[in-house]
Amino acid sequence: MNIQLALDRMTVEEAIRMAKQVRDSVEWIEVGTSLIKEYGVESIRAMKQAFPDKTIVADCKTIDNAKYEFEICFQAGADVATVMGVAPLVTIETCLEVAKKWNKRVMIDLLNTNASQLKELSSLKEAIFCQHVSKDQQELAGGSSDELHASFDASYEVAVAGGITLESIEKLTEMRPTVVIVGSAITKAENPNHAAAQFKQEIERVEE
Amino acid sequence: MNIQLALDRMTVEEAIRMAKQVRDSVEWIEVGTSLIKEYGVESIRAMKQAFPDKTIVADCKTIDNAKYEFEICFQAGADVATVMGVAPLVTIETCLEVAKKWNKRVMIDLLNTNASQLKELSSLKEAIFCQHVSKDQQELAGGSSDELHASFDASYEVAVAGGITLESIEKLTEMRPTVVIVGSAITKAENPNHAAAQFKQEIERVEE
Repeated sequence: MNIQLALDRMTVEEAIRMAKQVRDSVEWIEVGTSLIKEYGVESIRAMKQAFPDKTIVADCKTIDNAKYEFEICFQAGADVATVMGVAPLVTIETCLEVAKKWNKRVMIDLLNTNASQLKELSSLKEAIFCQHVSKDQQELAGGSSDELHASFDASYEVAVAGGITLESIEKLTEMRPTVVIVGSAITKAENPNHAAAQFKQEIERVEE
Repeated sequence: MNIQLALDRMTVEEAIRMAKQVRDSVEWIEVGTSLIKEYGVESIRAMKQAFPDKTIVADCKTIDNAKYEFEICFQAGADVATVMGVAPLVTIETCLEVAKKWNKRVMIDLLNTNASQLKELSSLKEAIFCQHVSKDQQELAGGSSDELHASFDASYEVAVAGGITLESIEKLTEMRPTVVIVGSAITKAENPNHAAAQFKQEIERVEE
């Protein structure tokens, strides 16, 4: 189980500085949607340059214009890019084609998908499926990742996102995620380096 | 019925140059999602500076993090910003709150919304509802705005987007749109200025 550090609501310089603090504990670094929309793909380029050996996730949340958006993310150095599960299926399939051509990965963000969409998406086994309680659902409606259910069996690669804390980790292992996406529990900690190390330790403990 | 010029898949400089060519025929200028994701909110700022008297639409396609995203768009000079109808309701409601505070507008992009979402959204009468056939649906699945249906009666403000041509205009008047969103039919015309003027004339003709 890898940690994906989600970086949002900060400048590109702050994001790189934050990632440097916790680089020993995190394997994946996410350039958050807010960084991409605020600063453009330059945010992805700068992150990959700073961390050529990490897996850089561009959380572009594509919902249309799949080929163009995925190509600019991959050109900028992203190893993984995200598409919304609520997008038209043709968009998601195009993301998978572009990723295949670039030998990169697609993460499908399942935010607000319904049962019939989940069923349709379940045939796309090469994707990483991200079970996601959104920022707004957490901050404004009190949701948390504890409410997620394991809709995808062990044959899928799964990521989990949304309000994850040190205390959530043990429960999340039931879902056998490839990646746990952690944002403010690390970035807003008094000592981010220490917080990230604790996450890494806890993951090692529960995986034993 | 206003024309909203959609600018996508080009640099900010090209977008401003294009908008200058057609400024006499278009009232609303859309900074497309691809411009925002490629160049950041700077694309919005540059467009508003170049056209302080036009209505600038930031097609940010928000699906989470509503307050942050809408604030950076409005701060950059957007008069209207977009949120996805497939987003959690709490996200859409937050966009409306932020817009109210800034005395700006929200356009809800109805791409891929289902009947129950449309019903839920129909109570949000202060929004502009954008009936949208996406780029990918047009280019990869042969969809067009001719297939849209008038789900919103005359008490709503409606926008229509997706593969609109000069020939579509007459039929679209049935929907009484506030805005018709035109992209490549103007930007990829041999003479964009002439193409935009033709759209304006056709709208004046059908509205008589």
